[in-house]
Amino acid sequence: MKKYAEMNLEELKAELETVEKRYAEIKALGLNLDISRGKPGKEQLDLVSDIFDVMPSEADFQIDGNDVRNYGVLDGIKPAKQLFAEILDTNPENVFVGGNASLQLMYDTVAKAYTHGLFKSDKPWSKLEKVKWICPVPGYDRHFAICESFGMETINVPMTETGPDMDMVEELVKDPEVKGMWNVPKYSNPDGIIYSRETIDRIAALKPAAKDFIIMWDNAYCIHEFDGDYVPFPDILSACEKAGNPDMVFEFASTSKVTLPGAGVACFACSKDNMDYMKKLIGIQAISFDKTNQLRHVLYLKDKEHTLDLMKRHAGVLGPKFRTVLDKLETEIEPLGIAEWQKPKGGYFISVNCMHGTAKEVWRLCKEAGVVMTGAGATYPHAEDPNDSNLRIAPSLPMPEILSQAMDVFCISLKLAALRKLLNG
Amino acid sequence: MKKYAEMNLEELKAELETVEKRYAEIKALGLNLDISRGKPGKEQLDLVSDIFDVMPSEADFQIDGNDVRNYGVLDGIKPAKQLFAEILDTNPENVFVGGNASLQLMYDTVAKAYTHGLFKSDKPWSKLEKVKWICPVPGYDRHFAICESFGMETINVPMTETGPDMDMVEELVKDPEVKGMWNVPKYSNPDGIIYSRETIDRIAALKPAAKDFIIMWDNAYCIHEFDGDYVPFPDILSACEKAGNPDMVFEFASTSKVTLPGAGVACFACSKDNMDYMKKLIGIQAISFDKTNQLRHVLYLKDKEHTLDLMKRHAGVLGPKFRTVLDKLETEIEPLGIAEWQKPKGGYFISVNCMHGTAKEVWRLCKEAGVVMTGAGATYPHAEDPNDSNLRIAPSLPMPEILSQAMDVFCISLKLAALRKLLNG
Repeated sequence: MKKYAEMNLEELKAELETVEKRYAEIKALGLNLDISRGKPGKEQLDLVSDIFDVMPSEADFQIDGNDVRNYGVLDGIKPAKQLFAEILDTNPENVFVGGNASLQLMYDTVAKAYTHGLFKSDKPWSKLEKVKWICPVPGYDRHFAICESFGMETINVPMTETGPDMDMVEELVKDPEVKGMWNVPKYSNPDGIIYSRETIDRIAALKPAAKDFIIMWDNAYCIHEFDGDYVPFPDILSACEKAGNPDMVFEFASTSKVTLPGAGVACFACSKDNMDYMKKLIGIQAISFDKTNQLRHVLYLKDKEHTLDLMKRHAGVLGPKFRTVLDKLETEIEPLGIAEWQKPKGGYFISVNCMHGTAKEVWRLCKEAGVVMTGAGATYPHAEDPNDSNLRIAPSLPMPEILSQAMDVFCISLKLAALRKLLNG
Repeated sequence: MKKYAEMNLEELKAELETVEKRYAEIKALGLNLDISRGKPGKEQLDLVSDIFDVMPSEADFQIDGNDVRNYGVLDGIKPAKQLFAEILDTNPENVFVGGNASLQLMYDTVAKAYTHGLFKSDKPWSKLEKVKWICPVPGYDRHFAICESFGMETINVPMTETGPDMDMVEELVKDPEVKGMWNVPKYSNPDGIIYSRETIDRIAALKPAAKDFIIMWDNAYCIHEFDGDYVPFPDILSACEKAGNPDMVFEFASTSKVTLPGAGVACFACSKDNMDYMKKLIGIQAISFDKTNQLRHVLYLKDKEHTLDLMKRHAGVLGPKFRTVLDKLETEIEPLGIAEWQKPKGGYFISVNCMHGTAKEVWRLCKEAGVVMTGAGATYPHAEDPNDSNLRIAPSLPMPEILSQAMDVFCISLKLAALRKLLNG
């Protein structure tokens, strides 16, 4: 097959006819498929549902003189801190184990910055004229939604193969109104990029003008390899500490995609000063989080090694789904030169950059043919993709045969949008 | 025994000698007891620990086309809404079922008022010069801590036998800077007072100058009778609606003292407009709360009737503890006329008003003799009890024999402080 860009008008028109016919056929199937969200599939839920069989004993309930079943122990039970510390390669005393969702902890950190200020803030951000925030793009729509909800001015920084464009970031943080930056440093959402050691060191060594500038380190996919072995990853807390910025970072993680989505346990990790400061504020909001669920997780996951074994079983389900997506793209799209994508080995997404100016149209065509994708632009703040190019595929939820069908729809839609763009400009 | 107020100097001095001797003896025991917090005791935790035996089946997981184990359904699973609606005597669609703690939902409602404003706000409260808040006193220290943390100006309103002094409340809400009011309407913390129907109707019919004035209706003890049968209680939502104030109230409840403290399920209930508004805001913060714990609770508690049966068993543990406290007070203190208290039939506290100017001293004497009580003043905003009179007893945590010892210490400390006050002015 020839690249579309190398076809003459005749060839393009012939291809359009074929593709339109194929699209009409597939649309006639009346499909109803969803590849929009990074939700684990039923096989994965079944895989971990034996967590409901965990029966804590009377002895399990007693930890450090506290009964797990009662109120108290705001920052989480010690064995849960230990488990997360081992997974994140930090110390248990840096870890605050909270409720069921890291998104809540992230939102809450930003909310506290607005209502009370962060540890190093002169005043609450709600008292500032303007708050600016660095958003590596494409990125996670729910991160950006937090910025939008608080009325921040978002600044796009392009992702490279090794993480965000650090030259740009280093320049941006000279502005004292720039207060923070989102990061999904391992298997970034949606590109699946792993930040390089150099990127991490440059982030840790930033010299922001705002003394309360905050690195939000959403390590959502810290042990989420679906292809190959666990890849060790530098600890951002010690990197920041070494660079003289111990209080500049909050790291987040959860077991939402290890055990059950929305019924897992989430944590943040930070410096001692940040921890003391946040505990004082969170102590007004909560007496304690669900420590019985923390205990359930400790008994079920045991330690990092045992957790990585479980992740291999998740990989056994996820791997083939990602390969289906990549195979389809390689067979159907690569020869045509109309889109580019990463080939991640972990995380929950494949991010496709299609021909500029066609992402919205591809999304519309998919929808018309019964396939729901994450909205075009959703990977950019305010859903504004300046190139109208990025689309995010979430292969985890559908069963493999359905995913294959959805990818057929996606590929034919990609082709159709590209051909129409080439022919009609 | 004569009332202290009726004793002559001679008699007072003789009594002081006896009491000081008794205090020294009890102090020498080196006790280490805690009656400070409304924490359920071990017997209550054991009573409900069969909730860990609840094993949901494959069929239980599927509710309205959603898998409880997966992400989604922000406002909670339908059967959990139904359960709370039945308990609170409202409609399921008014109920948002959240995470493990109503305190978090209350804090969050206030926090959202500051960061985004409430449904009827012109602007976020963080943009206002001043926010004033009505605090019925004595009240719940954690409510007041929220006011303090957000820098509100708190206004004390005395509790009467039928609820807060409504003449004063009706006057106060004419001030547009007065934005809200705490309430624990059934078995109030700490007095154990039940708001009368008249009080409830007057609250529902308030005409506040601030259009975003908010009634915080913390129905923490809605089914928490420890003496006698369940007492039905008017639904505040329909009362407000009938009075033309449908959006003026958020009601809160949880199973923290029904199943497990900190591992229960909490909810808020509100009007449709408030619900739509809050869901939009909370949707930025969370994908969903722990629906598997919601399911566990639905399977365990079943319905209101079955839940009330469980509450009877809690009462079987709590009732004797409260009777121990009341018996000691009646025997030791009542004849002396040096303190007053309510005799609640539900809730978690007994509130004692001791001789003005002695509460701090009683607290100190208790502490020196090895009994930790809630701090004197804690039942007032900023821990400032203008009469230095109120002390809160939480009988639920200690075993009965320990509670009895603690009450001996408390009564002797009450006497000692009163005598010293009478003799030294």
